[in-house]
Amino acid sequence: MLKVPDHQVAGHQAGHGHPGPLIDDSGRFYKPLQDDDRGAIEAAFYTSFSSNTRVPDHIRRFFPVFYGTKLLASDGSGQWPHLVLEDVVSGLSHPSVMDVKIGSRTWYPEASEDYIQRCFMKDRKTSSLDLGFRISGLQLYESEESGLWKPDRKLVQHLSADEVRVVLKKFVSSNSPIDPNLNPDCSFASSVYGGSSGILAQLLELKSWFEDQTIYHLNSCSVLMVYDKKKELKGESSDAKVKLIDFAHVTEGNGIIDHNFVGGTLLFDKVHLRYSYQS
Amino acid sequence: MLKVPDHQVAGHQAGHGHPGPLIDDSGRFYKPLQDDDRGAIEAAFYTSFSSNTRVPDHIRRFFPVFYGTKLLASDGSGQWPHLVLEDVVSGLSHPSVMDVKIGSRTWYPEASEDYIQRCFMKDRKTSSLDLGFRISGLQLYESEESGLWKPDRKLVQHLSADEVRVVLKKFVSSNSPIDPNLNPDCSFASSVYGGSSGILAQLLELKSWFEDQTIYHLNSCSVLMVYDKKKELKGESSDAKVKLIDFAHVTEGNGIIDHNFVGGTLLFDKVHLRYSYQS
Repeated sequence: MLKVPDHQVAGHQAGHGHPGPLIDDSGRFYKPLQDDDRGAIEAAFYTSFSSNTRVPDHIRRFFPVFYGTKLLASDGSGQWPHLVLEDVVSGLSHPSVMDVKIGSRTWYPEASEDYIQRCFMKDRKTSSLDLGFRISGLQLYESEESGLWKPDRKLVQHLSADEVRVVLKKFVSSNSPIDPNLNPDCSFASSVYGGSSGILAQLLELKSWFEDQTIYHLNSCSVLMVYDKKKELKGESSDAKVKLIDFAHVTEGNGIIDHNFVGGTLLFDKVHLRYSYQS
Repeated sequence: MLKVPDHQVAGHQAGHGHPGPLIDDSGRFYKPLQDDDRGAIEAAFYTSFSSNTRVPDHIRRFFPVFYGTKLLASDGSGQWPHLVLEDVVSGLSHPSVMDVKIGSRTWYPEASEDYIQRCFMKDRKTSSLDLGFRISGLQLYESEESGLWKPDRKLVQHLSADEVRVVLKKFVSSNSPIDPNLNPDCSFASSVYGGSSGILAQLLELKSWFEDQTIYHLNSCSVLMVYDKKKELKGESSDAKVKLIDFAHVTEGNGIIDHNFVGGTLLFDKVHLRYSYQS
């Protein structure tokens, strides 16, 4: 029983004869391969990564499990190859989700000049250049009655550095993210960002691997941060988690550290997340 | 008694009615202020930094001591304001010196569009983009007879990532850096790069401060690495040291980490320097 995912906050959707992603009941996410280089690159990355014995298990858990590829019939576009992946929000009815595109630079030398120029301008117009990342999608649980708040993607992507800081606070606040008169209370910051298994600790673990690994350069990839605000409101553990997604622009590391990726995790680490839950 | 410094490997020199730097016998370095924004920015940085109580002493030692500014008469250009700084190679007769410009990006949002475009192209044509730094000047002690080897700056700046790795090995090798038939022996790698007071340890100390500090963004600044190969050849300690120089493009941090700078130190840390003295 395949259906359209409810909680996708960024990335491609169905349209223009191209299928969108699907999910099933068993926790799998079906991502249509993009029909240019990007599809091939992403499939190659998942294939390489899932069998690469140099990747330690404690790092592997930050990536969606890869179950191979599958041809699926899709309305209007016939049979289409899909990546079969772990659905990282499976089982959560109202997850708060933030998609953060990592790197002050989303282009890379191997890309086309046209792509480089487009990314270059976008990185400068968004918080990427200043902060080393930009929010590229967002969904926040508001309340039982109001459900989920999903601001417009274009608006989210073009938030300034200061606005991004506010969103990082809203992400872990119990009060309404919409009401402009309410200051985010950061009620859940210490449990979601902080603690030995919180998002900050997970990002630090990722960062320390990236300070060593020279296998992959994860250009233009995203960190997805997910937790269940409903559980937090009830005082239960929300299992805050971090998953890396979107590998359509991965290149080989060739013995060189992905300093652009590390730069992005840095800011989360030292300034923003700590800030958010300490102040 | 002012004279032209022998061991300047990068940066501006005298010409076109503009004076070059001078040194005296007491270990001071006189750097003419550039006659546009850059001079004012660099003077403001040294003034701010030298009196900033938030900068810890163990970090301060990585910056040249600042003694204020002074008007000096200079041939052909009348009185000219100079920064009076510590001469970081004072007392060394034949220092091996490497000037490493830090950052995969040498431009910054506040700069002019013209400057941004020029830097953008140069960063892509040099090792900056790949490695997060480029060598911008180099002088290696060869032998008593041959003296110092100072390759052409333009060539040095445009070395590829692989060529940079070779230079990092040559920098700490006892055999001739010029002879293409000799593989660098890395004889001094463990004493110059390694050890508790070696260059790697110093860079790590700098890096950890940069992972926290959000006061300054040191755009387009250089790490100068200096040691006395003659002493190493005699089995004496060469006092390898690291100094940051060139602050004509510093901007305010505004609470944001200088991830571009950290990215550059990363590579030195984890890959290149260790590589050089372990293999």
